[in-house]
Amino acid sequence: MQKIPRNKDNDYTCDMATERRRVITEETGAGLEHIGTYSIDPGLLPGNIENFSGVAQVPMGFAGPLQVNGEHARGEFYVPMATSEGTLVASYSRGMRIAREAGGIKTTVIDDAMQRAPVFVFEDARFAREFGRWVSAHFAQIKAKAEETTSSGKLINIEQYAAAKMCWLRFNFTCGDAAGQNMVSKATRHACMWILDQNPPGLEHFSLAANFDTDKKHSWVNNLHTRGKRVVAEIVLPDHLIKTVLNTSSQAMYRQRQLSNMGSIMSGAVNNGAHYANGITAMFIACGQDVANVAESSAGINYAEIRDNGDYYLAITIPSLVVATYGGGTGLPTQRECLNVLGCYGRDRVYKFAEIVAATVLCGELSLGAAVVADEWVSSHDAYGRNRP
Amino acid sequence: MQKIPRNKDNDYTCDMATERRRVITEETGAGLEHIGTYSIDPGLLPGNIENFSGVAQVPMGFAGPLQVNGEHARGEFYVPMATSEGTLVASYSRGMRIAREAGGIKTTVIDDAMQRAPVFVFEDARFAREFGRWVSAHFAQIKAKAEETTSSGKLINIEQYAAAKMCWLRFNFTCGDAAGQNMVSKATRHACMWILDQNPPGLEHFSLAANFDTDKKHSWVNNLHTRGKRVVAEIVLPDHLIKTVLNTSSQAMYRQRQLSNMGSIMSGAVNNGAHYANGITAMFIACGQDVANVAESSAGINYAEIRDNGDYYLAITIPSLVVATYGGGTGLPTQRECLNVLGCYGRDRVYKFAEIVAATVLCGELSLGAAVVADEWVSSHDAYGRNRP
Amino acid sequence: MQKIPRNKDNDYTCDMATERRRVITEETGAGLEHIGTYSIDPGLLPGNIENFSGVAQVPMGFAGPLQVNGEHARGEFYVPMATSEGTLVASYSRGMRIAREAGGIKTTVIDDAMQRAPVFVFEDARFAREFGRWVSAHFAQIKAKAEETTSSGKLINIEQYAAAKMCWLRFNFTCGDAAGQNMVSKATRHACMWILDQNPPGLEHFSLAANFDTDKKHSWVNNLHTRGKRVVAEIVLPDHLIKTVLNTSSQAMYRQRQLSNMGSIMSGAVNNGAHYANGITAMFIACGQDVANVAESSAGINYAEIRDNGDYYLAITIPSLVVATYGGGTGLPTQRECLNVLGCYGRDRVYKFAEIVAATVLCGELSLGAAVVADEWVSSHDAYGRNRP
Amino acid sequence: MQKIPRNKDNDYTCDMATERRRVITEETGAGLEHIGTYSIDPGLLPGNIENFSGVAQVPMGFAGPLQVNGEHARGEFYVPMATSEGTLVASYSRGMRIAREAGGIKTTVIDDAMQRAPVFVFEDARFAREFGRWVSAHFAQIKAKAEETTSSGKLINIEQYAAAKMCWLRFNFTCGDAAGQNMVSKATRHACMWILDQNPPGLEHFSLAANFDTDKKHSWVNNLHTRGKRVVAEIVLPDHLIKTVLNTSSQAMYRQRQLSNMGSIMSGAVNNGAHYANGITAMFIACGQDVANVAESSAGINYAEIRDNGDYYLAITIPSLVVATYGGGTGLPTQRECLNVLGCYGRDRVYKFAEIVAATVLCGELSLGAAVVADEWVSSHDAYGRNRP
Repeated sequence: MQKIPRNKDNDYTCDMATERRRVITEETGAGLEHIGTYSIDPGLLPGNIENFSGVAQVPMGFAGPLQVNGEHARGEFYVPMATSEGTLVASYSRGMRIAREAGGIKTTVIDDAMQRAPVFVFEDARFAREFGRWVSAHFAQIKAKAEETTSSGKLINIEQYAAAKMCWLRFNFTCGDAAGQNMVSKATRHACMWILDQNPPGLEHFSLAANFDTDKKHSWVNNLHTRGKRVVAEIVLPDHLIKTVLNTSSQAMYRQRQLSNMGSIMSGAVNNGAHYANGITAMFIACGQDVANVAESSAGINYAEIRDNGDYYLAITIPSLVVATYGGGTGLPTQRECLNVLGCYGRDRVYKFAEIVAATVLCGELSLGAAVVADEWVSSHDAYGRNRP
Repeated sequence: MQKIPRNKDNDYTCDMATERRRVITEETGAGLEHIGTYSIDPGLLPGNIENFSGVAQVPMGFAGPLQVNGEHARGEFYVPMATSEGTLVASYSRGMRIAREAGGIKTTVIDDAMQRAPVFVFEDARFAREFGRWVSAHFAQIKAKAEETTSSGKLINIEQYAAAKMCWLRFNFTCGDAAGQNMVSKATRHACMWILDQNPPGLEHFSLAANFDTDKKHSWVNNLHTRGKRVVAEIVLPDHLIKTVLNTSSQAMYRQRQLSNMGSIMSGAVNNGAHYANGITAMFIACGQDVANVAESSAGINYAEIRDNGDYYLAITIPSLVVATYGGGTGLPTQRECLNVLGCYGRDRVYKFAEIVAATVLCGELSLGAAVVADEWVSSHDAYGRNRP
Repeated sequence: MQKIPRNKDNDYTCDMATERRRVITEETGAGLEHIGTYSIDPGLLPGNIENFSGVAQVPMGFAGPLQVNGEHARGEFYVPMATSEGTLVASYSRGMRIAREAGGIKTTVIDDAMQRAPVFVFEDARFAREFGRWVSAHFAQIKAKAEETTSSGKLINIEQYAAAKMCWLRFNFTCGDAAGQNMVSKATRHACMWILDQNPPGLEHFSLAANFDTDKKHSWVNNLHTRGKRVVAEIVLPDHLIKTVLNTSSQAMYRQRQLSNMGSIMSGAVNNGAHYANGITAMFIACGQDVANVAESSAGINYAEIRDNGDYYLAITIPSLVVATYGGGTGLPTQRECLNVLGCYGRDRVYKFAEIVAATVLCGELSLGAAVVADEWVSSHDAYGRNRP
Repeated sequence: MQKIPRNKDNDYTCDMATERRRVITEETGAGLEHIGTYSIDPGLLPGNIENFSGVAQVPMGFAGPLQVNGEHARGEFYVPMATSEGTLVASYSRGMRIAREAGGIKTTVIDDAMQRAPVFVFEDARFAREFGRWVSAHFAQIKAKAEETTSSGKLINIEQYAAAKMCWLRFNFTCGDAAGQNMVSKATRHACMWILDQNPPGLEHFSLAANFDTDKKHSWVNNLHTRGKRVVAEIVLPDHLIKTVLNTSSQAMYRQRQLSNMGSIMSGAVNNGAHYANGITAMFIACGQDVANVAESSAGINYAEIRDNGDYYLAITIPSLVVATYGGGTGLPTQRECLNVLGCYGRDRVYKFAEIVAATVLCGELSLGAAVVADEWVSSHDAYGRNRP
């Protein structure tokens, strides 16, 4: 097979994309007309993709309006969702409807941290322990070094984890409106170069990463200590609304929550809720997020109460929501339009965006949770789901 | 805010999409020109989305050629990747280059199972236990019932999990070329209706789902017992290729693997590799998969050996890869084109697609793993990564 | 330092024990009078200990009577507990009192399985997969081989777990009244020798154990698939008894249960209950169990309900309770006396013993759970806990 | 059945113990002669047990000498082990022999923390978040309050964990030579009473414990952040010693380590080693520890390297070793004798004891690990294991 055409500048032009599609069609016989239909100016794409050849067109619908009573997101929003899974937009919309009728969703960003976690290997555990103490004592210098490489990244603290003769340092940064993975890699590397220059006694080996970050994968350390934003969304639903909108009751939903808690505990699931990943993924694709972070962002915790008056309280907590309103794919044309619909493009918007995502997730939990309880889950997929090859 | 225009047929026309964008622009002031640029025929979209309003244009590049020595995928492939994360396509391409020079990647589909896991709650644990025995004894009837609702779904077995007075049944199906979540929901529900008709003694409550499936979330039960396909990709890399192509060595990569194993074990990560999610997500978006399944599909296990001659053996295992070559978003225009490039659209292709995904993941592990070891990780992101707002 | 005296038969006599204590005292200056005070006939000890030198005297109290409405344990029992932790016996006794007043505890043994899990490593994943299929097809022969080495062990099934080019076989046995770890090691090894004799194609390496059993450690596979006995204990407590005996209420205990569920889910605890390990350990020491199995046996699941009439339903589930009424330490003098008190020494008693342990655990959950809620936890430890050096 | 005799002072006399045994024998027919044979003065037992009725006699052997090159434990030690599991003392002794021949074991106490983790529930997530900030700002006062109740407990820091509208505070104390669970309960309660007196805005509910400690159970938070002592033991074994003493080789042991790592990762085991729990449990029973803490203390991490000269480096890490040399059962007669043998009874000895436990665990890993590799595991149990009913 031919190599995919590439010139030394990884040329970002429509001509180059056309040439690549031509070669691929020539080799495989597959037509690429639709992939070649796009309105992106390829000149925007350096930094977003290599071997640019066209676009995936992912169908987009808007759910809502979603009423958010957040600290950063206040008011009603149309929520852009890019997906090919029938029922999804309809189900989130249904959840948004009952949430709106109940007065909206309260959202709170609890924590904010992006990590890189280098490992330092020593001759023995004692050197590793002493190194850890030295790091604690030199936090100010390490912070200063780390922040030399970035104007928006701030080093908040460094967690330490020890085993055998290793010391992992988990650098926690805030990154402004960027997701920040590259920013923190660079800043952490720079700080580590300075640390290495100090010749830590007994050091045998250093690696900038060794699975303690933990990027693009769920982990317990992320769950406990946040990766990206830790966000909570809460609602109190009157029982009568559950009955009229969701065709079930507070009591029935609460019973289901107990069983789902048990199911999660027993199966070792990283989320005791229903399907955070659906809403998060659809918003991530629409809004130019790094969609692979669904791996971390799909973990979560549902917590419910029945109030004395029969109302149903539900909170969802996303411990590791990796989001951005600046950088990455946020500036691409359709993605930027979606962020604009939410008023979330650019600086000082990332907490607002995180709140809207969390509120959306809550609506999905209400709607799917109720559909299972009301035995409408299968029938709704029959109605809305794919019915053709 | 106005409601999003919806008519009783959830009208799938360009006009309706235009009207929706008009309302949203009117309410929010955000222009939606790019979202409105697409070549999909909206008439194709029932079953894929509600409130259709346009598309997300996700930049697409092709990596490769990727040489796969699979049982279903054999030969070279251009791998479509839709992403906005700079460096990703370049990095996977680099991994594919060394894999090709080493003679290609061996892939094996180990297992295949899609689940729905209803819970039956009884008066006490003894009724629950007796129910479990009854289910085992009536598997043939339950299977016959379940398969009444589907021509391609086959009920393979039913796992049982017991706690307190609950009995979870985890129905395992093969689903042909579909991912099968809806298929198995419907089939399982139908079988359960029959079970309920038999009046299981002591039954108090039934729910079609209670977090033991576990859909759209990682879990230990998925890791142990597969959700979707369980796939392995393997390669043996000569040390000299690692030196010339990846600028490091077998020994250095192996040392890093040991540290990454420790990091994963300590941090409680669900993947001891580097970034399966990146390649999987980019292929999922390009190829019309249910991208939210990145939640499950991002788990994995890396295993490495140094051979006596200095060669480096690496295997990646994806225990829960949820993929389809039929149904869902696979038939959408750009998505179908991508599947066609791989020769993976339609019937009897899903194992082939699973193998290509696994081979791609392996290449990403080689490339990023080596970049970390060779200290080229940060510099390559500087070169390829986003350098503009 | 001198070696500890040992003769070629590892002589089990009081004289030899005395000699060992003499040497140790001579070297360390520590008097060993109490260790030397015992009524065990050392001649009983081959198979239980090497370098026999005396005994640990662990204080023993009896809790109860405990009323068990099991399938194997029926009636009232005095429960022997060996511990040095003040409050423990008193607290379990309190739980037993309310359980008795509520009519007793229903217990159910759900499952029974003891494992050894050899690993077979092949040239590649395909050989490993084919081996797995071969094993399934030859289960009858493998079972026959395995059972040649034991009269009481029965091979029930073989689970298979695959990653990379490895195939783990998890042999599940029932072992009569023994815990069975040694029995299943021997039987599994014997079966594997036969398997190896069949020259499995592509086999590179074999190991009789590689952490998939998983012995002496908690694991997800144990939780899901049982190690030892899977036992449930259930009770329904009238609210008025909770008020009069436990100084709290159904509602307050239920609220605490919700918080404990959340705490467990968030902290990644392997037990969402309070302190199964306390009762299990005290009974294990008293009754001659392999106390190190507290590692597996301490996992568990609490599940509660409030009934419409205000009653409180609580179930505890122990998924991996490793117990024996025969073999190991069960025949030692004080241990055998304790088993006799329970009517649990010898053949056909192990399910009875498992039920009594589970009922005891439930009582501990009731009592400590209530003490936390009623804010009597700290004060009771002040009253009963250690008040001297 | 009669109640177990109890008088208002829970009378600690031999007569009372005799009376209890008499009643139990009368009711059950079980003789309790051996249980009644003991040299403990019952007057010592208030605070250690209720309903005192006699003792469990657990056979004790000494392993060793064990050579420890620690910071607190230096020199050779006879290690007391109370167990009824044949082969255990012999196997640990074998490991100690090779460790001694290799020059001894380096041990390091990395961290020290005992916890209580109350939960504060608020009206919503924002109140919970503000409370967390208030706690951080008032750490000094909280610390002062907590330390009013104890002379040896020191509050080191307070971790915070948030979900929904809850804020868990994980109070970390050092506790001198006590294990400290009761000490930290009392201190934390006292501090919380003061916090409650400050009327935290929006507080709905408080509970002193809700499964975030996590006492008597393994958890991820314990693994990451230590419960009790975090201890490492390390050794470098020359290949020739492995060959002559353990009948295998560095290479073979290292290969087994890789497979065990995979087995642990796949099975979800909380320890990738062989059997920490065996050595820990036997020492805990002998030395008057709270044996139920085997639940936490049995977790661990093995890490191995092959050195260029063929030597084998092995480290074991115990992240949550709960030990004491003062308080609890440490002062009981046989238990105190055992601690005296180790020079570990009383004040300023707990790190020394932790180091000896860790060194012992390492020896067990060497010996059992090698026995599996050399295929001596089953045969050694045949030789040393139980061979009678």
